[in-house]
Amino acid sequence: MKALVYHGPGSKAWEDVADATVQDPTDVVVRVDTTTICGTDLHILQGDVPAVTDGRILGHEAVGTVTAVGAAVTGFREGDRVLVPAITRCGRCVYCVKGMPSHCQTVGGIGWIFGHLIDGTQAELVRVPYADTSLYAVPNEVTDEQAIFLADSLPTGYEVGVLAGRVRPGDTVAVVGAGAVGLSAILTTGLWGASRVIAVDSNKFRLTKALDFGATDAVEAGPDVVAAVTEMTDGLGVDVSIEAVGYPETLRTAAALVRPGGTIANIGVHGAPVELPMDQLWIHNVTITMGLVDTVSIPTLLTMVASGKIPSEKMGTHTFGLDQIDEAYEVFGNAAAHEALKVVIRR
Amino acid sequence: MKALVYHGPGSKAWEDVADATVQDPTDVVVRVDTTTICGTDLHILQGDVPAVTDGRILGHEAVGTVTAVGAAVTGFREGDRVLVPAITRCGRCVYCVKGMPSHCQTVGGIGWIFGHLIDGTQAELVRVPYADTSLYAVPNEVTDEQAIFLADSLPTGYEVGVLAGRVRPGDTVAVVGAGAVGLSAILTTGLWGASRVIAVDSNKFRLTKALDFGATDAVEAGPDVVAAVTEMTDGLGVDVSIEAVGYPETLRTAAALVRPGGTIANIGVHGAPVELPMDQLWIHNVTITMGLVDTVSIPTLLTMVASGKIPSEKMGTHTFGLDQIDEAYEVFGNAAAHEALKVVIRR
Amino acid sequence: MKALVYHGPGSKAWEDVADATVQDPTDVVVRVDTTTICGTDLHILQGDVPAVTDGRILGHEAVGTVTAVGAAVTGFREGDRVLVPAITRCGRCVYCVKGMPSHCQTVGGIGWIFGHLIDGTQAELVRVPYADTSLYAVPNEVTDEQAIFLADSLPTGYEVGVLAGRVRPGDTVAVVGAGAVGLSAILTTGLWGASRVIAVDSNKFRLTKALDFGATDAVEAGPDVVAAVTEMTDGLGVDVSIEAVGYPETLRTAAALVRPGGTIANIGVHGAPVELPMDQLWIHNVTITMGLVDTVSIPTLLTMVASGKIPSEKMGTHTFGLDQIDEAYEVFGNAAAHEALKVVIRR
Amino acid sequence: MKALVYHGPGSKAWEDVADATVQDPTDVVVRVDTTTICGTDLHILQGDVPAVTDGRILGHEAVGTVTAVGAAVTGFREGDRVLVPAITRCGRCVYCVKGMPSHCQTVGGIGWIFGHLIDGTQAELVRVPYADTSLYAVPNEVTDEQAIFLADSLPTGYEVGVLAGRVRPGDTVAVVGAGAVGLSAILTTGLWGASRVIAVDSNKFRLTKALDFGATDAVEAGPDVVAAVTEMTDGLGVDVSIEAVGYPETLRTAAALVRPGGTIANIGVHGAPVELPMDQLWIHNVTITMGLVDTVSIPTLLTMVASGKIPSEKMGTHTFGLDQIDEAYEVFGNAAAHEALKVVIRR
Repeated sequence: MKALVYHGPGSKAWEDVADATVQDPTDVVVRVDTTTICGTDLHILQGDVPAVTDGRILGHEAVGTVTAVGAAVTGFREGDRVLVPAITRCGRCVYCVKGMPSHCQTVGGIGWIFGHLIDGTQAELVRVPYADTSLYAVPNEVTDEQAIFLADSLPTGYEVGVLAGRVRPGDTVAVVGAGAVGLSAILTTGLWGASRVIAVDSNKFRLTKALDFGATDAVEAGPDVVAAVTEMTDGLGVDVSIEAVGYPETLRTAAALVRPGGTIANIGVHGAPVELPMDQLWIHNVTITMGLVDTVSIPTLLTMVASGKIPSEKMGTHTFGLDQIDEAYEVFGNAAAHEALKVVIRR
Repeated sequence: MKALVYHGPGSKAWEDVADATVQDPTDVVVRVDTTTICGTDLHILQGDVPAVTDGRILGHEAVGTVTAVGAAVTGFREGDRVLVPAITRCGRCVYCVKGMPSHCQTVGGIGWIFGHLIDGTQAELVRVPYADTSLYAVPNEVTDEQAIFLADSLPTGYEVGVLAGRVRPGDTVAVVGAGAVGLSAILTTGLWGASRVIAVDSNKFRLTKALDFGATDAVEAGPDVVAAVTEMTDGLGVDVSIEAVGYPETLRTAAALVRPGGTIANIGVHGAPVELPMDQLWIHNVTITMGLVDTVSIPTLLTMVASGKIPSEKMGTHTFGLDQIDEAYEVFGNAAAHEALKVVIRR
Repeated sequence: MKALVYHGPGSKAWEDVADATVQDPTDVVVRVDTTTICGTDLHILQGDVPAVTDGRILGHEAVGTVTAVGAAVTGFREGDRVLVPAITRCGRCVYCVKGMPSHCQTVGGIGWIFGHLIDGTQAELVRVPYADTSLYAVPNEVTDEQAIFLADSLPTGYEVGVLAGRVRPGDTVAVVGAGAVGLSAILTTGLWGASRVIAVDSNKFRLTKALDFGATDAVEAGPDVVAAVTEMTDGLGVDVSIEAVGYPETLRTAAALVRPGGTIANIGVHGAPVELPMDQLWIHNVTITMGLVDTVSIPTLLTMVASGKIPSEKMGTHTFGLDQIDEAYEVFGNAAAHEALKVVIRR
Repeated sequence: MKALVYHGPGSKAWEDVADATVQDPTDVVVRVDTTTICGTDLHILQGDVPAVTDGRILGHEAVGTVTAVGAAVTGFREGDRVLVPAITRCGRCVYCVKGMPSHCQTVGGIGWIFGHLIDGTQAELVRVPYADTSLYAVPNEVTDEQAIFLADSLPTGYEVGVLAGRVRPGDTVAVVGAGAVGLSAILTTGLWGASRVIAVDSNKFRLTKALDFGATDAVEAGPDVVAAVTEMTDGLGVDVSIEAVGYPETLRTAAALVRPGGTIANIGVHGAPVELPMDQLWIHNVTITMGLVDTVSIPTLLTMVASGKIPSEKMGTHTFGLDQIDEAYEVFGNAAAHEALKVVIRR
């Protein structure tokens, strides 16, 4: 089969490799019909994720068709149309049982293994371990172009932003950073009845998209953001402040926007420590949350997409064939120049 | 009446002042039968709290007897034995309605006003605004020496540590700092079924007290703390890590002790920003909480003290008369040398 | 002033009475600009509520203007435009503090006192006790015709149906009974992300309204309801089943529609005991909730109406002047014949 | 091997049957070291559970040692000491994922299959399906005589009584019925900080045991129970009322004991419909819960037993060998006469 193989920092190739096969009785093999690229894949290519070594097939998001089934698998059969999520769930460890497979102890203490600790989804075939507890059937009403974003980005915005931030009916929410994940948070704040959603970004294209995805207000990033948002919110700040960038400055901005008693939900992946003004924050009764996605909200999100209430297909701005994956990387890697959010890569 | 009056940094005096009186129809006046000193009072004396100005009567904790009642007060009468809590609650603003009077908008955006924005409880009489919504009747079964610590330190340990940290049955809890507030957290972890409570402190007297207050393990602070606690907890860390000191180093220690998916509950009052290792923490699905006490748990704590399940009187290690308040300050200000936790000051 | 006075079963009159005045320092007087009629008022007129005695002014819902203010009231002034909710909240008793003023101990163990234990809102003026903790300011963006339904029916559907039933994103909800309160539940299920809302009623006009108010499916009441709903829900039943009628049969229907692990939220006012199939239900891990409204969701609902997300004005199908109140009663009392939901009565 | 085989109503025999073996790759076989008898087993013998047919091995509780392991099982090995719980959990269906394996869709819509839909644990060997997601390792600190009651009765009292009833610190709890399950609820109310626990039963031996298990008050069942409990609770009733019998009368008693806003947690297995006074209850804002145990609390309970905080061994009043199982049934079937709670049956 063909697959996108990592060969060390800066190097990848769409090349021939051995076909993915069932190795354990709990495995299935899935033919990849649709995949996409995540910001994490770009980090890997820059050499930022040392656990990814030469020879690893990249990618951790796919919609596909089951082609082979291990002896212990009872929930899926050949021909089933499935979503392969970013997180693998053994279903039995203490973290999987508490609904937090992001820290599945059985698969290595971290649930993200595709394109990281095992071969990934940017390939013609992918082996899926613990298939019965990890895969999701895709309803007929949901297209590949909708489902693919439920593998990682949409649940990340929803779980790590909206759910962790505990958005509740009537709340005002700020989202600092309107990239793919920030937009995913914006797209799902309505599930919990937010009354006002304020997007903050430095990029006008993204702010336009934010309004299209459900934000009620768009604020350009800059020195006046805190004053602007405070004025919009009776001088108290927002109920929930979601950070979707991953820099010290943006986290501090998110922290400055929240009212006493509110929540700062950090989605951003940080590469450095962050100095927080605990001398001001300690008395504000705020909560700061952070984490890797669990993808356990996928059933809810599939239901909402199927019912027409979450137009997840809006995330995909460009489409490529699997054999155009290098071009897809180029576009996604220069998202601003191409006005790209997420790319759709079809078989 | 006599009262302890602040006269600028380093200066206070037990002196004659005008009697406290009812000013608004929602006020009562309480004769102070028992009061105590808080660490915050020491900060004020050092000049760290600029809102406290020359002439202010200090103190925000009291048990006493109602001596005068405003025209609109219906819940209390002359002669009632009451607890005056650190926090004043108007009962109607958005924060009071959501159970967070620490940020009562009516009394100034912060619910702590005694000995801060209005005259306090280290006096023979104290005026109590919004009495109907702020005072608590003290049951006969609860002594003054038990009730006095429910004005601030016990609810602080319980609300900002145990409740905010979401301790649940079977949990392992670490408490970094076994002073009065850390010990208050230790004393109340059992209300939520903690199975193991690990106290961390550099002071042996405090560690001994921690074991007496319900800790199952005592660990001396130092470079090996993280390794020691990790080994006690199957290599994963504790479910809830409570910080009760207020320094960058102790908060980082608390953060290093928590397992993925756990909670870091900051009780400490911070005087400086804190650099947090967000590059490591972001992927650990942890929650960080912080805040000023609301004192809304007082009814629960009074019930538990009355039923014999919370021996709050253990907090009081030294007793003084009101006219010995200077001596009480000296002992409390040098707590380690005196092996003091909290002082009891009686009329 | 003029007021609608109850004179025993079957008898009421729009007559001259003494003006409402401030009696306690916590009172205000409100000029009634808009009021409405509740199904409970009809029950009172039938003599079903013995606590209501001859001479009582009826009504417990109003939007109006403050005309007089007691000495202890600080949150409202003459001229303020306010919502008078069905429930009075002292703000200090154990039930008010826990957010359940429906059982306010201070005002008599039940928070519904207007038109019941004290004079009500179907009058030119009404005295409002505990005004600071009971009244709500109405934002400029919200009209009287929108706000009036937030006094009782909309919060009843929302709190006793949607909130008590714990509707969550992706859920399927059945609402048995599409009268004013059932429609209020339907109108607010979206605040918690319901994906499918099935209205059940015997009246076609109401089913049409249900679809207009946000239901996705309308099912005519009858022997096939359970089979129809079960088929719509993969054979398992709905997540949340809301009863909004108040008869044994409708509660049993609601119970038969719920899936294992679901919730049956009873809103209906029952006049007789109900035999429930506990021999079948006990093993289904269901929860049954019930209760009087607290009206504590009014701030959330005002925010959502102001933001355009809850079109509460749709509840009002007929409008009258205060002096046409007898005619308003006639129309509301024969709602089916008049295709009426709620009436709006304007000054 | 030997096993206790059901042969129709009133008939059972300890007889030779084929050895239990691994049939599916997800199975293990466990040698039964300790088992016990449940009230449900007595119902089966009376012919009340038609799904149990002639030839079925009885029993759904065991502590034992793994003797054979299926090809797909990775979490357990031969020789492991394990707890076999009453409920089987596939770990992947919608109910298992939400933590409610009592309704596991994969094993038949009900998680209780041992001694019901498949052969059970009153035997020398038992086949355990879905072993990785169903079995629990028993810590060394926990004896067989402690662990055996965690297979069903202790989690039933805890989950269906204490957890479903939402006992919280400071609460007053009534437990109607102090048999094995009611006592299990009493034994675990302390995990959530109950301040007062009132046991109600007609049997003096059980009331004595209730006080030994942690009840603070014992009330003899009879016409004065409601008055007595109301007087104990300031005239309002208890916060949580747990029913642990299963008759209409006892459920109505439990309902009459609860205060407005409280919870009635039904544990009892009902054999008939129950008439509930909805005409009184609807306005009381109460919640009624009910259900089959999920056994998902076993890890918490094992931790609490290991830490010495739950003396579960107190449930076992009589001990027998496996070959004395008929005698064990006779004692358990006449529990009152023998002053028996639960029996321990050892290999």
